[in-house]
Amino acid sequence: MAVTAKKKTKNLKAAKKMVYFFGGGCADGQAAMKNLLGGKGANLAEMSNLGIPVPPGFTISTEVCTSFYANKRKFTQGLKDKLKKNLAKVEKVMGAKFGDKRNPLLVSVRSGARISMPGMMDTVLNLGLNDETMTGLISQIKNERTAYDSYRRFIMMYSNVVLEIDKDHFEHLLEEKKKEKGVKLDTELSAQDLKDLIPEYKTMVKKKTGKPFPQDPQQQLWGAIGAVFNSWGNKRAITYRKLNKIPEEWGTAVNIQAMVFGNMGDDSATGVAFTRDPATGENLFYGEYLVNAQGEDVVAGVRTPHPLNQIQKKTKKINLSSLEEKMPKIYKELEGIRKRLEKHYRDMQDIEFTIQKGKLWMLQTRTGKRTALASIRIAVEMAQSGLISKEEALSRVEPDQLDQILHRMFDPQAKKEVVAKGLPASPGAASGKVVFNADEAEKEAKKGEKVVLVRRETSPEDIHGMIAAEGILTARGGMTSHAAVVARGMGKCCVAGCEVIKVNYGKGQFSVNGKVVKRGDRISIDGTSGEVMLGEVPTVDSEITQVVKGTLAANKSAVYKIYNRLMQWAKAVKRLGVRANADTPGDAQVARAFGATGIGLCRTEHMFFGEQRLPVVRAMILADSEAERKKALDKLLPFQRADFKGILKVMDGLPVIIRLLDPPLHEFLPKHEEVSRKIAKLKDKGGDKKEIAKLEKVLAKVTALHETNPMLGHRGCRLGITFPEINRMQARAIFEAACELIKEGNKPFPEVMIPLVSHVNEVKLAKKDIQDVAEEVMKEKKVRIKYMVGTMIELPRAALTADEIAKETEFFSYGTNDLTQTTFGFSRDDIEGKFLPVYIDKKILANNPFAVLDREGVGELVRIGIEKGRSTKANLEVGICGEHGGEPSSVEFCHSLKMDYVSCSPYRVPIAILSAAQAAINER
Amino acid sequence: MAVTAKKKTKNLKAAKKMVYFFGGGCADGQAAMKNLLGGKGANLAEMSNLGIPVPPGFTISTEVCTSFYANKRKFTQGLKDKLKKNLAKVEKVMGAKFGDKRNPLLVSVRSGARISMPGMMDTVLNLGLNDETMTGLISQIKNERTAYDSYRRFIMMYSNVVLEIDKDHFEHLLEEKKKEKGVKLDTELSAQDLKDLIPEYKTMVKKKTGKPFPQDPQQQLWGAIGAVFNSWGNKRAITYRKLNKIPEEWGTAVNIQAMVFGNMGDDSATGVAFTRDPATGENLFYGEYLVNAQGEDVVAGVRTPHPLNQIQKKTKKINLSSLEEKMPKIYKELEGIRKRLEKHYRDMQDIEFTIQKGKLWMLQTRTGKRTALASIRIAVEMAQSGLISKEEALSRVEPDQLDQILHRMFDPQAKKEVVAKGLPASPGAASGKVVFNADEAEKEAKKGEKVVLVRRETSPEDIHGMIAAEGILTARGGMTSHAAVVARGMGKCCVAGCEVIKVNYGKGQFSVNGKVVKRGDRISIDGTSGEVMLGEVPTVDSEITQVVKGTLAANKSAVYKIYNRLMQWAKAVKRLGVRANADTPGDAQVARAFGATGIGLCRTEHMFFGEQRLPVVRAMILADSEAERKKALDKLLPFQRADFKGILKVMDGLPVIIRLLDPPLHEFLPKHEEVSRKIAKLKDKGGDKKEIAKLEKVLAKVTALHETNPMLGHRGCRLGITFPEINRMQARAIFEAACELIKEGNKPFPEVMIPLVSHVNEVKLAKKDIQDVAEEVMKEKKVRIKYMVGTMIELPRAALTADEIAKETEFFSYGTNDLTQTTFGFSRDDIEGKFLPVYIDKKILANNPFAVLDREGVGELVRIGIEKGRSTKANLEVGICGEHGGEPSSVEFCHSLKMDYVSCSPYRVPIAILSAAQAAINER
Repeated sequence: MAVTAKKKTKNLKAAKKMVYFFGGGCADGQAAMKNLLGGKGANLAEMSNLGIPVPPGFTISTEVCTSFYANKRKFTQGLKDKLKKNLAKVEKVMGAKFGDKRNPLLVSVRSGARISMPGMMDTVLNLGLNDETMTGLISQIKNERTAYDSYRRFIMMYSNVVLEIDKDHFEHLLEEKKKEKGVKLDTELSAQDLKDLIPEYKTMVKKKTGKPFPQDPQQQLWGAIGAVFNSWGNKRAITYRKLNKIPEEWGTAVNIQAMVFGNMGDDSATGVAFTRDPATGENLFYGEYLVNAQGEDVVAGVRTPHPLNQIQKKTKKINLSSLEEKMPKIYKELEGIRKRLEKHYRDMQDIEFTIQKGKLWMLQTRTGKRTALASIRIAVEMAQSGLISKEEALSRVEPDQLDQILHRMFDPQAKKEVVAKGLPASPGAASGKVVFNADEAEKEAKKGEKVVLVRRETSPEDIHGMIAAEGILTARGGMTSHAAVVARGMGKCCVAGCEVIKVNYGKGQFSVNGKVVKRGDRISIDGTSGEVMLGEVPTVDSEITQVVKGTLAANKSAVYKIYNRLMQWAKAVKRLGVRANADTPGDAQVARAFGATGIGLCRTEHMFFGEQRLPVVRAMILADSEAERKKALDKLLPFQRADFKGILKVMDGLPVIIRLLDPPLHEFLPKHEEVSRKIAKLKDKGGDKKEIAKLEKVLAKVTALHETNPMLGHRGCRLGITFPEINRMQARAIFEAACELIKEGNKPFPEVMIPLVSHVNEVKLAKKDIQDVAEEVMKEKKVRIKYMVGTMIELPRAALTADEIAKETEFFSYGTNDLTQTTFGFSRDDIEGKFLPVYIDKKILANNPFAVLDREGVGELVRIGIEKGRSTKANLEVGICGEHGGEPSSVEFCHSLKMDYVSCSPYRVPIAILSAAQAAINER
Repeated sequence: MAVTAKKKTKNLKAAKKMVYFFGGGCADGQAAMKNLLGGKGANLAEMSNLGIPVPPGFTISTEVCTSFYANKRKFTQGLKDKLKKNLAKVEKVMGAKFGDKRNPLLVSVRSGARISMPGMMDTVLNLGLNDETMTGLISQIKNERTAYDSYRRFIMMYSNVVLEIDKDHFEHLLEEKKKEKGVKLDTELSAQDLKDLIPEYKTMVKKKTGKPFPQDPQQQLWGAIGAVFNSWGNKRAITYRKLNKIPEEWGTAVNIQAMVFGNMGDDSATGVAFTRDPATGENLFYGEYLVNAQGEDVVAGVRTPHPLNQIQKKTKKINLSSLEEKMPKIYKELEGIRKRLEKHYRDMQDIEFTIQKGKLWMLQTRTGKRTALASIRIAVEMAQSGLISKEEALSRVEPDQLDQILHRMFDPQAKKEVVAKGLPASPGAASGKVVFNADEAEKEAKKGEKVVLVRRETSPEDIHGMIAAEGILTARGGMTSHAAVVARGMGKCCVAGCEVIKVNYGKGQFSVNGKVVKRGDRISIDGTSGEVMLGEVPTVDSEITQVVKGTLAANKSAVYKIYNRLMQWAKAVKRLGVRANADTPGDAQVARAFGATGIGLCRTEHMFFGEQRLPVVRAMILADSEAERKKALDKLLPFQRADFKGILKVMDGLPVIIRLLDPPLHEFLPKHEEVSRKIAKLKDKGGDKKEIAKLEKVLAKVTALHETNPMLGHRGCRLGITFPEINRMQARAIFEAACELIKEGNKPFPEVMIPLVSHVNEVKLAKKDIQDVAEEVMKEKKVRIKYMVGTMIELPRAALTADEIAKETEFFSYGTNDLTQTTFGFSRDDIEGKFLPVYIDKKILANNPFAVLDREGVGELVRIGIEKGRSTKANLEVGICGEHGGEPSSVEFCHSLKMDYVSCSPYRVPIAILSAAQAAINER
């Protein structure tokens, strides 16, 4: 009851102040009020407070939206009054009156959620126009054409957004008109042509809704506000929220703002810009604009926009006139605002502006989306210039973004058939089958196909296809087009505005310079160069990986320098150690170069699959006696010794956790079907009887080793306990390798790990074998080795009895893959393609627990295990070597549990380092 | 350091008093000192204190044995002195001197551990005899024959036990002598014959050991003491301890006692007796004796012993003279001692006595082993007579013993070919293949064969074969023979002393009345009647089960009356509820009759396998759409409704937990191989194409449903979440059944259980479906139903997040089978036959965790789950339905965790009830 009362009070309080004014150098709100005003509204208020020219307006708060939904989609009482008062203030600032015949105030109605959701929410411009106010508009702006263009746009947008009539119907009428007039561009239509379109548009509205287009500006306004609220609940918005994990309860604000016109002739323009280059992060003012246009023209990508300035023309090699050339004074003002905004917001801004008859108006500022590379570069350079702290810089880079700059790229040496070049909208290298719509992309991807989605332009309806595709290629639209912005947000490769390709959806193909590429053909696109290539072009390591591997000099890579600076800061800040999972000296080398300070998991079984080794391994498995088995193991010994020597040498001075044999033995034998087929064939041919007998023995062993649930079967330490000679061979290989290295002047530090422990007694037995062998070898070689013996903690029972197990071990390594399997009772092999998607879809699970560590269940076991383990051995070394060790939120969790290190695949080491740094920063 | 010091002090203290005297109406020790003196020694002391005639002697404590082993098998310092002093005391009481030529004291040297280990430890009698003392003995006992017989027995036993020479060598010499003399029995040999054997025996010793037989009595004595200690570490003892879970650290005491002779002529005798009938528990003095014999003659079963008294002659139909007839005065004295001992020890006693020239000596008393039936009857009757309390009676019956009296027995109506009749040594009904030695028994049993072990007589070396066999048949030996005693201890069926069968080990057969039964032939033995039958005789329910099922009147079964009394007491004492796992009305009926107060687990999937149902179930699985699936489910509905109605009706007024569908769907489809074989056949024959297509669809589904680890796959609630229509059908069947029953005047109480839950969100979804259906049905039928919704807790994650899950459920039922699988990472299907035996053997695990609940790991999860669950729902109903619910020590654990009930198979309900009562008693 208390809670409800509190809620009510809060609602009443919110009801008092539902609408927030801004404009004319002041505002009711400010940037910090994003939750209430949405990002756009809060920033409009902030800009207004900063004295930046913003068309006046007001924001209806997100709480109004929430109560709209709580209230069966009805507006809160009292909203009407508030709105009236604020509208009057806007009228006063603008010196115009909403609905006035002579001097009408026109407004835009825009959504604005806490977090920018590009293209997802609907916008209505030029609201307030009707047959009567049209005359006033014409007389005010003295441009009949602009006025009629605005009116027909308004009818179209309003009809689309509020009345839910498909835009295509209006586009079609426009196309018909252009055909009729024999022109190509909208701008070539005359004022009369546009005027003639108005009744046609109105007729369409009547036809589709049965009612005339609303002429009352008040009715228009309330309809638009309702539409914005309703659009929060539409399918596209829901999809986007799901993808971006945005709660439904947040709601959206509505911004109602006086219209300014970029389409009032050649002294008018509209544009969008980033205060730094969103693709590379370079500290250059970067943007696009169109003369005599409204904002949507730029974003929608219907006309190819012009560059903002000279440097952009030069670096991006664009031969179109820049704003800097065309309107130098305005450009300078804009440049000034850019600097103020960056200084104020301390981050790269994405801004929208309109120039109305030579006056600059700022319509929006928000933190700009950027590529991974840009994100890192901006963060590092802002910290270097003192604008933000190093810690802030570290916090700003999402660890997974590093993955993108570590991505493989097209091999520069490879033969490429470049057929087109578009805008490098989002970097990356993508190859795959061509598909032409989102559904197809999703369908093919589900089958495991890599696809490239090719569209004339993309819209919010395409998001699921963009998610499914490896990359996106569009024929229209600039660097700030929907495709470009969304792809960058997803870290997905995108080439946009590739105008030379002609897409024919009907035929399912596109043509480019006489070549035809059909649905299903393979292409490659390079989001860094904008190149479109036929076929699948081979890829090579990223620049950073090349530096790390030593094939490229560090000083030759600008990217590496930025990356390296960030890593240095991260290493200085983090508390967690970061190791790598590596089975070969090569992998270990890469891991060490990436900054790993040890190997957290070296799986020895991978070594068993080598061509020379597998027959020996099979001989061991097929052995009838311990003696025979020992003979086979003796043959394996030199191989394993060499393996371990290699990896220990690479990691000289650092710890290397070597896990004893883990998988069930049948994994090393051929499949049942395969053997029985061979036998049948041999018998048919009357083949060698000895050979048949041999195969039959193999078959018998395969059958004997068959398990119903191999995941829970005879594997892990259970192998070494039933066949101690295997453990002893592996231990001998490890210690002999270490001894040799010491004699050669190295400092090996092996940590021998016993897998799949469920009971302390298993550890006692296995440990004794290991220690006995260690003593034997050290005596033989007359060398002392520093080593440790520890266990995987990957079964619930191990975690639950960790106090007992810790008494017998020097380290724990959490195998969270298996621990997740047993804690949930999920077989990873069986569920990921089957019911797990249903579980995610039905919101039973927020994440795939094999990707993101489940804190409540699996994490609780990890916590219990650490607590119990350290209760009996305070200096127990604890780490994680499951795949979660490279997943940022899981790394943070490991940090919070005071683990000593995380271990992940070599290429995720930088991600883990950054995640660890962020965990340390967040803890402060 | 402190601990070591403490230990040392303790050792020193023990060193002070290593030897404990008894005899002559007083003793250093007493019955309570079993740990120190062993059972035999403590009871000899106790009897001596009671004034019962016991030959004087002394006990070397178990601590001396422990320090013997700790000390590399060397005697503790100071022992020699103590022994000397005590020996002197014995000499004083007996008026004879150890090693004296004229009046030699002879002693027995016997082992005595805390718990009686029959036949496992070695005994030496007549120690102190040599060529010189022989003359003294002859002059003392005035019986040359007895003296020589004692001497040759002594040489044989000593050589066997201390010098480790096979007994057979001496037996062979004895047999040769009998052949030479043309006699059959040992007793037919004359004094001279026996005298002649002495040098032959000595020569054998010299031949086998290279040394003469020791003539020095001191050397003999110390050799025998060492042999007793060493025998604690021999293989047989280790096997027995393993079987009976006796710790190695306990050690054995050594009892050295003045010899008395039962073989001094017809006024001498020796015997063993039970204060009540160890087979039936009847309050009758029961025993066997032999005139002119030593104790080993009775136990070894070489001669068929005589009954103790007249009633025994009558009831067991034995036509041999009783002790009551032969020596009425002594019998009366013995009868008096029997009463005193029972009153003193408050339990049935197993006693040994010797009559030397008309004087009765008690050699031993200990708590007697008994059959399950006897155990129950004795406990109940002692409580009824006021000798012990009801609680004590309840505590004395091992719950698993109930299993034996609930065992099936031979069908009295069946045609039986009875070929022989032996002694009903241990009740039960066993059928199987005949084997003639223990190794063979073990080998066949491992293959899954049921075997009956047939031996002339058994010895401790045969124990592993007795464990493996269904039953044991011996040609020689009485009710107290090795075979009889050990079989009773194991609860295994045994017919002993079946003298008509002639066993020929060499030929691998036995003959009986002209019939020959060979190795591998099948026979049946009835341990209750002593009958031996050819072939496998069919079995029927036990008497108790018949009463429970209503096929036998309760007042016609004495066994039932005793059983029922015990159960009434148990029910009054226990706190835990006891439910049963039952899938059919029949099973439920049995369970209820056995005292179950609810069904803890009704598995609905077993109902899916019915002949009429399986095709419908398959149609459901093969359905391409939800609609098709629903159609199949609609057909299943009436079947399921009838099932549930049946079981709910039987359990009227009591709760019935119905688990929703649990197993993976592929379990209902035919095997992959089977279908593909069918398809191939049809194709070969050019069969119907439609049929082939249909089968191919099945095959495709089988393939699609294949799982790598089905245990962790798409099963449990995961089915009902992906196919909610299955849950809804099952819920509808349950609630419709309940509604019908209510209309018919019944009180159904279904508890709907969601299986394999890992996350609270699963419960939320499934629960909603169940509740929705319940509301629907109740509205339709206009009836209100009392029901609950709960979950299985069988995955670690469920236990770890039980606080969340409890908010959504009304009950928890621990599925400890699956919980054990996931907590240990053990697949039951894969490990029980494979590495689990190795784990038990290597002592990694003390028990099979699927039989006895693992308290440290699985139990910890259970504890956590209950604690967390009740933290958010105080009145949460908690039970267990895994197989552990019927295992006594697990039931005790469940009691300690304050569960509401345990649930087990119907036939284990009495066991669970008794276990629950014991848990409640032990807690006090």
